[in-house]
Amino acid sequence: MLFERLCIIGPGLVGGSIARMARAHGGVARHVVTTAQSAASRARVRELGFADSVTDTAAEAVRGADGVILCVPVGAYAGVMAEIAPHLAPGAILSDAGSTKGSVVRDIAPLLPAGVHFVPAHPMAGTEFSGPDAGFATMFEGRYCIITPLPGSDAAAVAKVRAMWEAAGSMVETMDVATHDKVVAMVSHLPHLIAFTICGTADDLAEETREAVLKFAASGFRDFTRIAGSDVAMWRDIFLNNREALLEMLARFTEDSHALARAVRYGQAEFIEDRIHRGRKIRRGLIERKQA
Amino acid sequence: MLFERLCIIGPGLVGGSIARMARAHGGVARHVVTTAQSAASRARVRELGFADSVTDTAAEAVRGADGVILCVPVGAYAGVMAEIAPHLAPGAILSDAGSTKGSVVRDIAPLLPAGVHFVPAHPMAGTEFSGPDAGFATMFEGRYCIITPLPGSDAAAVAKVRAMWEAAGSMVETMDVATHDKVVAMVSHLPHLIAFTICGTADDLAEETREAVLKFAASGFRDFTRIAGSDVAMWRDIFLNNREALLEMLARFTEDSHALARAVRYGQAEFIEDRIHRGRKIRRGLIERKQA
Repeated sequence: MLFERLCIIGPGLVGGSIARMARAHGGVARHVVTTAQSAASRARVRELGFADSVTDTAAEAVRGADGVILCVPVGAYAGVMAEIAPHLAPGAILSDAGSTKGSVVRDIAPLLPAGVHFVPAHPMAGTEFSGPDAGFATMFEGRYCIITPLPGSDAAAVAKVRAMWEAAGSMVETMDVATHDKVVAMVSHLPHLIAFTICGTADDLAEETREAVLKFAASGFRDFTRIAGSDVAMWRDIFLNNREALLEMLARFTEDSHALARAVRYGQAEFIEDRIHRGRKIRRGLIERKQA
Repeated sequence: MLFERLCIIGPGLVGGSIARMARAHGGVARHVVTTAQSAASRARVRELGFADSVTDTAAEAVRGADGVILCVPVGAYAGVMAEIAPHLAPGAILSDAGSTKGSVVRDIAPLLPAGVHFVPAHPMAGTEFSGPDAGFATMFEGRYCIITPLPGSDAAAVAKVRAMWEAAGSMVETMDVATHDKVVAMVSHLPHLIAFTICGTADDLAEETREAVLKFAASGFRDFTRIAGSDVAMWRDIFLNNREALLEMLARFTEDSHALARAVRYGQAEFIEDRIHRGRKIRRGLIERKQA
């Protein structure tokens, strides 16, 4: 048994999926305890019954837990940590499921009690739905989970977190915090920023054209809006907490889009073809890696 | 029978699908003739057998045809039109399947012989594959086809083109040329420009990070690269031939992305939330229209 008492703080899409997964696999946790900020969410989790117990406060939830996973928006970490830090059990493993890692280390590390092992993690899985009803036990199967151990992280604690994600069916990789934040800024945060933006751009078009935009939305635009249907608080916090890497990737992208726009303006066919070819090249790379 | 002799110039993904569709539906065309620029393509079309005849030149192909559909990249229209104009049959209907309409009118109208009816059209369907093997008869089913009649277009000719696309299973709408170009710039051309660009941006990252980008590509980035797997010549020509509308939409998008970036830089949570909410709003609009 990896954990005697596994505490999930924030039983939404990700936290609820971890809880369901832990109860579906015999070897992960003997008892799953969870807590949510709103009374309505706690009541719903009790109804759904995917946790063994539900507490009213995070402080209660972590008491006696040998595993604690933060599954709230990353902007809420500092507040949650201030609440739970005095109540974390000695020897407990504290992990999380946030999409940014630099900000998580910044907010958690200063409040970490001696003897509690902090192992940041980022399961790269999700849907466009949110809340206690949205989770499911198999959400992490076949998906990557990135663990970003810190210098001096306890090897046994890292191994336990890895074992939990492997039990969930994930492919676990380790990476340093800065590389993680750069990579996810490129493959996830920037695409979402672009998707949210292009929806707003369309929304700003004159009423007549906007109706046509909605009516004739081609597959390209549908892809953008699909990834734009995500949780507001989660994405707000991701943008605010991976600011440097996100702004860097956006700056690179903007330079490149301006270069392509200039080629369009001046009719530079070869430059345009080169850009399209490069798109196809990286696409082939994805197919070869069976991620497509 | 809508057409006695329907001529498809350019039997690739779109042209090959029209030919297959015309032969699959009894009432569309008695004879389907097609031609391709390369000998290899012509040989392949003969092997595949989806046309009744294949000619070596476009001039031969249009002789005696009462319906002619240009299915080549829009940048090739002027050259093709110079070749076929002297050979178009009096009373023939000339249509096309290009994704830009202003450039098509610009390139075709000056060369149009008296008595030939020009009805520009844009079937909004496709896949990421190209060439004679890529087409299939059902590609247009349930998809929009936009017809952009010109002032003074022959009503009977417009009705025939509409009837053909309805036979193909498409939902046919009419629109003026300028509105068409603006709408498709927003819903299709800009998303493709962004997709091609972001792939190049990722490709430019340092070798170590690029490998991680490919490995961890989240669903957001996969969507971008899916639409980036398209035909090079077709998209080059679309960008070059819908320049004004595309650059306008890119400018709007860039302004909006900079506004969001500024909010991220200065921690303006409400502004960020507003953008995410707007993305969800237009997404709901798509779902309500059953386009999602």
